[in-house]
Amino acid sequence: MRPLCLTLSGVIFLGGGSEARDNIPAGHTGAYVGKLLVVPMDGSHWVGMKAISQEMGRRGHRVTVVMPEITILIGPGEHYETLIYPLPFDKAFVDFIMSKNEDVLGKATQPFLERIQEKFSQIKRITELLHTTAESLLFNASLISHLRFDAVLTDPMVPTGSLIARKLGIPTVNLLRGIPCFLDMQSTGCPSPPSYVPRFFTGLTDKMDFKQRVINTLVSALEPLLCRLIYWRFDQIAKEFLEEDVGVAEVLSDSAIWLHRIDFTMEFPRPFMPNMVPVGGINCNVRNPLPEDLEPWVSGKQGFVVFTLGTSMKKMPDEITQVFLEAFRQIPQKVIWRYSEVAPDNTPENVKMMSWVPQNDLLAHPGARAFITHAGSHGLFEGLCHAVPMVMVPIGGDQPDNAARMASRGVGVVLDISSITAEDLLQGLNEVINDTRYKENMKRLSALHRDRPIDPLDLSVYWTEFVMRHKGAKHLKAAVHDLNWFQYFCLDVIALLATIVLVFIVLTAKCLKFCCRKLSRKRKQD
Amino acid sequence: MRPLCLTLSGVIFLGGGSEARDNIPAGHTGAYVGKLLVVPMDGSHWVGMKAISQEMGRRGHRVTVVMPEITILIGPGEHYETLIYPLPFDKAFVDFIMSKNEDVLGKATQPFLERIQEKFSQIKRITELLHTTAESLLFNASLISHLRFDAVLTDPMVPTGSLIARKLGIPTVNLLRGIPCFLDMQSTGCPSPPSYVPRFFTGLTDKMDFKQRVINTLVSALEPLLCRLIYWRFDQIAKEFLEEDVGVAEVLSDSAIWLHRIDFTMEFPRPFMPNMVPVGGINCNVRNPLPEDLEPWVSGKQGFVVFTLGTSMKKMPDEITQVFLEAFRQIPQKVIWRYSEVAPDNTPENVKMMSWVPQNDLLAHPGARAFITHAGSHGLFEGLCHAVPMVMVPIGGDQPDNAARMASRGVGVVLDISSITAEDLLQGLNEVINDTRYKENMKRLSALHRDRPIDPLDLSVYWTEFVMRHKGAKHLKAAVHDLNWFQYFCLDVIALLATIVLVFIVLTAKCLKFCCRKLSRKRKQD
Repeated sequence: MRPLCLTLSGVIFLGGGSEARDNIPAGHTGAYVGKLLVVPMDGSHWVGMKAISQEMGRRGHRVTVVMPEITILIGPGEHYETLIYPLPFDKAFVDFIMSKNEDVLGKATQPFLERIQEKFSQIKRITELLHTTAESLLFNASLISHLRFDAVLTDPMVPTGSLIARKLGIPTVNLLRGIPCFLDMQSTGCPSPPSYVPRFFTGLTDKMDFKQRVINTLVSALEPLLCRLIYWRFDQIAKEFLEEDVGVAEVLSDSAIWLHRIDFTMEFPRPFMPNMVPVGGINCNVRNPLPEDLEPWVSGKQGFVVFTLGTSMKKMPDEITQVFLEAFRQIPQKVIWRYSEVAPDNTPENVKMMSWVPQNDLLAHPGARAFITHAGSHGLFEGLCHAVPMVMVPIGGDQPDNAARMASRGVGVVLDISSITAEDLLQGLNEVINDTRYKENMKRLSALHRDRPIDPLDLSVYWTEFVMRHKGAKHLKAAVHDLNWFQYFCLDVIALLATIVLVFIVLTAKCLKFCCRKLSRKRKQD
Repeated sequence: MRPLCLTLSGVIFLGGGSEARDNIPAGHTGAYVGKLLVVPMDGSHWVGMKAISQEMGRRGHRVTVVMPEITILIGPGEHYETLIYPLPFDKAFVDFIMSKNEDVLGKATQPFLERIQEKFSQIKRITELLHTTAESLLFNASLISHLRFDAVLTDPMVPTGSLIARKLGIPTVNLLRGIPCFLDMQSTGCPSPPSYVPRFFTGLTDKMDFKQRVINTLVSALEPLLCRLIYWRFDQIAKEFLEEDVGVAEVLSDSAIWLHRIDFTMEFPRPFMPNMVPVGGINCNVRNPLPEDLEPWVSGKQGFVVFTLGTSMKKMPDEITQVFLEAFRQIPQKVIWRYSEVAPDNTPENVKMMSWVPQNDLLAHPGARAFITHAGSHGLFEGLCHAVPMVMVPIGGDQPDNAARMASRGVGVVLDISSITAEDLLQGLNEVINDTRYKENMKRLSALHRDRPIDPLDLSVYWTEFVMRHKGAKHLKAAVHDLNWFQYFCLDVIALLATIVLVFIVLTAKCLKFCCRKLSRKRKQD
């Protein structure tokens, strides 16, 4: 096994974590200074987590981000240190899995069953990668034994951080968009009536007709099974790592605070628990000036379109790329496109392809006319924050649901990327750019989104510090965890009351019968 | 009918409201300046409402408090104007009703049924007073026709303000502790599982045994009926005033924002809706220096006890007063007692009786050792804010529930005031003053209570301004109001699914029967 590495602002220390950390100054300002362990999830999930880690470090806390040696997005930052652990596979293996995302997209002509099979194979590959990564951290005994912290900040979608927190006996702060099988709602004891709370992957809104409610109710009934399927391996890992008979659901219900990356301008209003804090749009104010080479691209009179497809989709299949180029050739706007490969030869002059784009800074520019996005939550919040209407081409995960939410607000259109044509795209772009209703709706929604008593990043940092200061937030946790499901729904009480009513009815009936018999006997005697 | 009066900072203008208001300067600072109508409820309910009205006015909004000519607590303030409407009864009538509160308390020796009858008579008197007051405002056509505002701030317990808002077509901000029959929860569509959300008047906590859950479930099942009983007269007033077939529940469900005067250090954690904002402890920072004549009373080495029984209980029956005096005689602390009548002759030297006490300022003093309170929510929040352990003697309303909540936190003891003895009181006082666990628990709870991302008064003002800026807060309102109760619980969906399962079972059984018959016939043939 390779040695344990600890990096701070690029400097690598070899050896155990704690000795190295002791060389770091305790922090600049802030009344309370604590030690925070960050166990992030890679990919776009890192974006919000990084913002909080940076801000916590900037406020003087000692922040340590624990990360695998191979990552997609996670990396060092100015205000936190990193603790790197080795993996049993190499970068080529990760790249191979990521490249398969493109394959899933490019098989529109394939038979349905084959496409489904391809999707499942890819999900299997990714979950295996997640499990192996988690095990590499959890069963790295020398690393785990060195951890001394006040709290853990983590993404509960992959419960590695929550397991470490339970092992160390310290409280957890979760940052998440939501867990597909509603495990977050189960673990917080938050009611989610299927009559108006649409489930993941259904693409439904909060206004459902009867048929849609049937679908939503069925999906909600299948959630416990879905959770079992998604987390069965982690349930085993939990038992092995914690050496106790406990599953992921129970471990997650320990969590002190749940920072939900949602906002009710995008999410449909629904019940919340006191330890759930909506912090959607965390990155809105995390801004930098635009690089100079982008200036001519954004200063044109007709404005420009921003086009990105998220971190897990580095390039698209060629046939889809050509559809986009064909449409872009016919619009007067310039296009800035995040595209990792070499630009195709027939790229029109108004299109600039870049392997990385400063998305939030571009959307904040007054020239941004439209945002073509895969509808990942971070991108949507950035578009919402800067009031840019959207053409949404969801690919997977929560993206179709996110897109449905934004479309229901009249701030964008949704297109199916696997069967997209240049005409569809052109029509979509024309609609959101030239039909002023989209921009007006977006400005209204954006004003509501930005009008909040406290900035979501500050709020996230506040609650993280709160948990560190008070060693948890038990007073915000509902007593629902002391109840089993039939107690929760008062089924035992209902059974008792029903029995009493039944006994009463039976006794009354018997009494009446008895009286009637007496009466009729008496009449006969008369 | 007497002329309509409008007063601003004590100056009385006779005549219509709007002309007079136009003489008032528009306001000092603040990016957005609007016009807010405040329709308060009298008594202790006014305390928080006044704080918001003052702060809104201070921020430059034009705030108009509409109040009856006879009030208990409502009065003019520095930063808002008042609009006074006449009543068909006089002050003596109100004083008579208020004096009856004392009678209810002093009849501990009376037979149970008589005491209940006395209580119901008093409730009837108070509700009649509330109805007549509401009608005097609502059917004062010349006043109502003059109202031009951006929003209404009101206490929905008496829905006068909500009715006016609906008539004027403007949004409502509610400030409330909670409505006894959970009408607030019904109108926001907020789930309140009876398995861990204790009901009003039960004195239960969030941890209930089976018997307690039976009681709580029964009370929750009776809530709709209770609401009907409490609001039947207002339902009629609503129909008459709005000239449409609408009840109070529906009118309240229009409300944009619900500012709940609760905090989860006192209230048990429970589900909340996005348009419900907990703002308990609104008055904690509204402070003034202590009057000079109180200085010798608070500076003693042994500290002092604060004793108040709220606005609706000006004095106590003599026999109970003597019990308190007897106990106070035996403690080394000084006592500052809010007592409206002349002090009895045998008042000991360490007791100072005053017709009004600066309660929050006294509790904030480091010498405060204990707080004897009727457990009204305002008092409890002030005690909690300044970490003063409590002896609670609840009288009525939400007080027994509030007391149960605080006692369950180990920060005070509860005594029955109608059967109290000097020994009980002495023991209670000794316990909370000398058993350090009470003070320690209180300090911990107080630290949690005061550690909030934004001050509750600022938060209340923020959401009031939000509603004025955006003409409501529709994006925070759950789609639950579009559903009837069987749709909400998906009973139609469950019925369909149950039918399908039933048909499937019946068909399978028939098939099996058919097959069996065939098989047995074949066997017979063989």
